[in-house]
Amino acid sequence: MSSKRLRVLLIGACGTIGSAVKANLAERHEVITAGSKSGDIQIDIMDVTSIKQAFEKLSPLDAVIMTLGKATFAPFAELDAAPLEESKHLLGIENKLMGQVNVAQVARDHLADGGSITLTTGILNEHPVPGSVSPSMVNGALDAFVKAAAMEMPRGIRINSVSPSVLRQSLEKYGPFFRGFKPVEAADVALAYSRSVESLVTGQVLKVW
Amino acid sequence: MSSKRLRVLLIGACGTIGSAVKANLAERHEVITAGSKSGDIQIDIMDVTSIKQAFEKLSPLDAVIMTLGKATFAPFAELDAAPLEESKHLLGIENKLMGQVNVAQVARDHLADGGSITLTTGILNEHPVPGSVSPSMVNGALDAFVKAAAMEMPRGIRINSVSPSVLRQSLEKYGPFFRGFKPVEAADVALAYSRSVESLVTGQVLKVW
Repeated sequence: MSSKRLRVLLIGACGTIGSAVKANLAERHEVITAGSKSGDIQIDIMDVTSIKQAFEKLSPLDAVIMTLGKATFAPFAELDAAPLEESKHLLGIENKLMGQVNVAQVARDHLADGGSITLTTGILNEHPVPGSVSPSMVNGALDAFVKAAAMEMPRGIRINSVSPSVLRQSLEKYGPFFRGFKPVEAADVALAYSRSVESLVTGQVLKVW
Repeated sequence: MSSKRLRVLLIGACGTIGSAVKANLAERHEVITAGSKSGDIQIDIMDVTSIKQAFEKLSPLDAVIMTLGKATFAPFAELDAAPLEESKHLLGIENKLMGQVNVAQVARDHLADGGSITLTTGILNEHPVPGSVSPSMVNGALDAFVKAAAMEMPRGIRINSVSPSVLRQSLEKYGPFFRGFKPVEAADVALAYSRSVESLVTGQVLKVW
């Protein structure tokens, strides 16, 4: 598998991780970049139609990688009990969680045999920080989804998540949330995506911390 | 703490686990039972108003235990990509996940100082079975929620989840999903709830398997 040139869809390509993943994989593979506004093709992961249209248009694809997903950071005291549509948990559930789950569920039906799906979670479910309750919850859901879905994937399709710690490149923005965490290099995080795509692991959380 | 008679709200009291928890705790504590239709008081965990009204009416409470929560078992192939409101993941997200999260978020604001919150998850995020993708995902979310929320609980309030394997008492119904799993006794599962309420652990997943 390592010698075949793969056709890879990278959703979230313009982000810090996405850029590093592109730099890594584009040396050996065809990387099609996607974003909500930029990239070779536009995909809104919260819009199932937009996901399906992209896969139909780009088929055949060997791999999809997601390096995006939003969730709300807020002090737990500010997370009031509320119906889902008014909950501060909604963004994480609709965007980072179900956005990636829906891409995975479309990819399951559209990827070439033996293809791979790689999601992005993060360190916060195992090592929460103040204000991370909602992102922690979403990451826990994603890691469990990957483990369970891997068992039932058809046609040799694999699925993994990459769980990075805070990036050195993002310290200015996120550093105050991650006091005491050793930052990781985006290029090292990109290696985990390469491992998911180019090795044979499945159902794994590839931790970079 | 072990010698004080506590006022405990048990939501889901008529279920197999709930009945065992009641039998265990009622020997030493005041247990107020709640269900959607039965019990001392009616609570619908999907209705935030009903949760808030119950806590206001029953205050002061030292502990709340949830032994309920629904999620959809289905072959992964049948979980189509869909908007959240049409997704087969919605039941688990709205009921088992956000139902319990909302009870926890109300309890955080209403329990007596030093009180405790105990949720129910299950073995499936660590040991998925065919058809469990959605329940596995929800359990992963809940275990991570508990770990993160514990750090930010005010007034010495603690929060844990109990994660049981399949119950011997439920083998007739769930046995076919859990081939090769060693069933556990409801009375042994009840001990974990007692540990959550009557010891000082917090942020833990109390596994019974």
